[in-house]
Amino acid sequence: MTGLFVTGIGHLTTNDGDSVRDAVVVVDDGRVSWAGPASDAPEAGDRTVLDCGGRAVIPGFVDAHTHLVFAGDRSDEFRRKMAGEDYRSIAASGGGIRSTVRATRQESEDELFELAAERLRRMAAAGTTAVEIKSGYGLDTGTETRLLRVARRVGEELGIPVRTTFLGAHAVPEGMDRDAYLDLLVGEMIPAVAGLADYCDVFVEDGAFTVDEAREILATAATHGMRARVHAEQLTRSGGALLAAELGAVSADHLDRATPEDAAALAAAGVAAVLCPGASYMLRSPQAPGPMLWEAGCVVAIATDCNPGTSYFESMAPIISLAVVQMGLTVEQAIWAATRGGALALEMPDRGIIRPGATGDLVVLDAPDPAHLPYRPGTDLVWLTIRSGDTAEPA
Amino acid sequence: MTGLFVTGIGHLTTNDGDSVRDAVVVVDDGRVSWAGPASDAPEAGDRTVLDCGGRAVIPGFVDAHTHLVFAGDRSDEFRRKMAGEDYRSIAASGGGIRSTVRATRQESEDELFELAAERLRRMAAAGTTAVEIKSGYGLDTGTETRLLRVARRVGEELGIPVRTTFLGAHAVPEGMDRDAYLDLLVGEMIPAVAGLADYCDVFVEDGAFTVDEAREILATAATHGMRARVHAEQLTRSGGALLAAELGAVSADHLDRATPEDAAALAAAGVAAVLCPGASYMLRSPQAPGPMLWEAGCVVAIATDCNPGTSYFESMAPIISLAVVQMGLTVEQAIWAATRGGALALEMPDRGIIRPGATGDLVVLDAPDPAHLPYRPGTDLVWLTIRSGDTAEPA
Repeated sequence: MTGLFVTGIGHLTTNDGDSVRDAVVVVDDGRVSWAGPASDAPEAGDRTVLDCGGRAVIPGFVDAHTHLVFAGDRSDEFRRKMAGEDYRSIAASGGGIRSTVRATRQESEDELFELAAERLRRMAAAGTTAVEIKSGYGLDTGTETRLLRVARRVGEELGIPVRTTFLGAHAVPEGMDRDAYLDLLVGEMIPAVAGLADYCDVFVEDGAFTVDEAREILATAATHGMRARVHAEQLTRSGGALLAAELGAVSADHLDRATPEDAAALAAAGVAAVLCPGASYMLRSPQAPGPMLWEAGCVVAIATDCNPGTSYFESMAPIISLAVVQMGLTVEQAIWAATRGGALALEMPDRGIIRPGATGDLVVLDAPDPAHLPYRPGTDLVWLTIRSGDTAEPA
Repeated sequence: MTGLFVTGIGHLTTNDGDSVRDAVVVVDDGRVSWAGPASDAPEAGDRTVLDCGGRAVIPGFVDAHTHLVFAGDRSDEFRRKMAGEDYRSIAASGGGIRSTVRATRQESEDELFELAAERLRRMAAAGTTAVEIKSGYGLDTGTETRLLRVARRVGEELGIPVRTTFLGAHAVPEGMDRDAYLDLLVGEMIPAVAGLADYCDVFVEDGAFTVDEAREILATAATHGMRARVHAEQLTRSGGALLAAELGAVSADHLDRATPEDAAALAAAGVAAVLCPGASYMLRSPQAPGPMLWEAGCVVAIATDCNPGTSYFESMAPIISLAVVQMGLTVEQAIWAATRGGALALEMPDRGIIRPGATGDLVVLDAPDPAHLPYRPGTDLVWLTIRSGDTAEPA
């Protein structure tokens, strides 16, 4: 594989110091070997030359929170929710997460793979170069392991790095006793997914799981090699963030209702704050306090939260728009959070940054300045995605 | 030109009665000749057959409010505004509408055409099949006529129907006395744009033009064959809607602060309400009371308001999302407003509807239900756009 010499970069966001005007990036053997002003650049030599014609370049997006392996169609439920129908009425008529669980359990591994691969291909076309995928629509041992196998396979076959997360503690499944499900989670499911999941996540929320239940689940997961992530403070402040800090979790996610106390604890414990502005938008609820978390010293990531119930986003561009316009991050903070923040939240230190040694994941924007991403919502500005120095589309 | 036989439509939105499952649309000589359930459809005969494979079909989008002929780049101003910089500070450093006016005046007609054509091609690729284009970034006779010529030409060369609107009364130009500009508008500019503009529009707002000024401008325009549109009640309730009703204007636009009194007057006078949810989103201000206007009996349209200052949207899909999620229109209302509502607001009665005699403008969505449009924001769901029965892309 010959190297790639990316020239004519009008504006380069490296996440490693100030942005550079008129820049060059060199990628050799899949990794950045040089990045900086064109005036100081090495010779192209026998590398393939890519002239960006003054376009802006940023690191590839790292989407640190998705639920992209699922089946079923909940667009009609969305229609009804937006028309004001009550959540309980929708649930009573078979809607809500349980409808996704029913549809997902019925699908074969190959069918689930095809659905996930279509989504991941669209994500990749929109500039995403690494992604986290949660299970959580099986809620039984067989389906949860199937979802995690699909999550691994979709990354391998498309050549996109995937981190997998076991989210059996997404909801108590229909028709099952709560204590029995907790026993199943701890006694059977977690041992069964060991090796398939990099992380274990718990939805800590009124109506989902308590802090004490989450502590037990995550402690068991840790003994099976899975580090913790926590769905925390999304709809109510229920203590998930403080638990994440107590356990030294990799991330606390959502955080719409997080307080300064939560932010200080997360920052002190080095827990990444993974914010999901698409979900807050679709739920018509307040955005997470992104600027406050940033100021408190948290590693802030923003993610699509791609899921069929509350945030069916696949592209990071509208997430950046929401993070700037609704949440109040600056343009530079939002782009950092969508790239470097996501990478750190997935323990991928060589991604989301453009400096020697980093993976050669770049997005070339069809615009002279990355501020065009939130400034022009709904226009596809991804001109080219480069993954490990390769300009080809995923398989 | 042979006819088009569109089959395999999983869900057809006609805007002419209930939606149809498993439908067929036939287009002959550019116009719909038949639409309805597949079981009743005529034979395809020698028409070209297009199998939609179960996808949903809706009428083409009609974008009834854009300012798409402009030059310059205000992305850095957007960055500063989002970071909290005050409007006056931005204006003092050369930003705001005046920066677009400066940049636009400097460009040749061909350069402005290329910029507008790029935008209109992207709009067309996103499913827009007819569009309104306002001038208003010249604010002198020569540039305003240039902008209107460009607006006409871009529609002709791309084969996309365009309605043009003279918006010399967008702002008082830099360095010019207010009364002198009003004299210029009425005495020179309006006569000069007669024949180039279908409509005349006035920005009625604190800091822009008063109701009395607008009345005089629009009365003069009427004597030159231009019907009225009014930018009304966007940032404050300043009386533009009642003026639009009084004058029997074609539309009142924005209406973010419209009251039930305004709505009743618009409905009674048959003035279309053209809402711009992208601008409210980007300005972080309340959405127009779309449901209230709808209930009052107004023809409600939603539009991109494509412009470089407050709403740089080109695609109608995110506008539908905002209309549903933020404004509270139902999915069906929002889709109607983006198609039939836009057509009626542009006096194009044979567009935005799928019935015999209507123009054969269709959008095939890569989804089984049009609710996917607002349900999956940021994912490009336009599988194919058909313009007057033609599946080719614009020139």
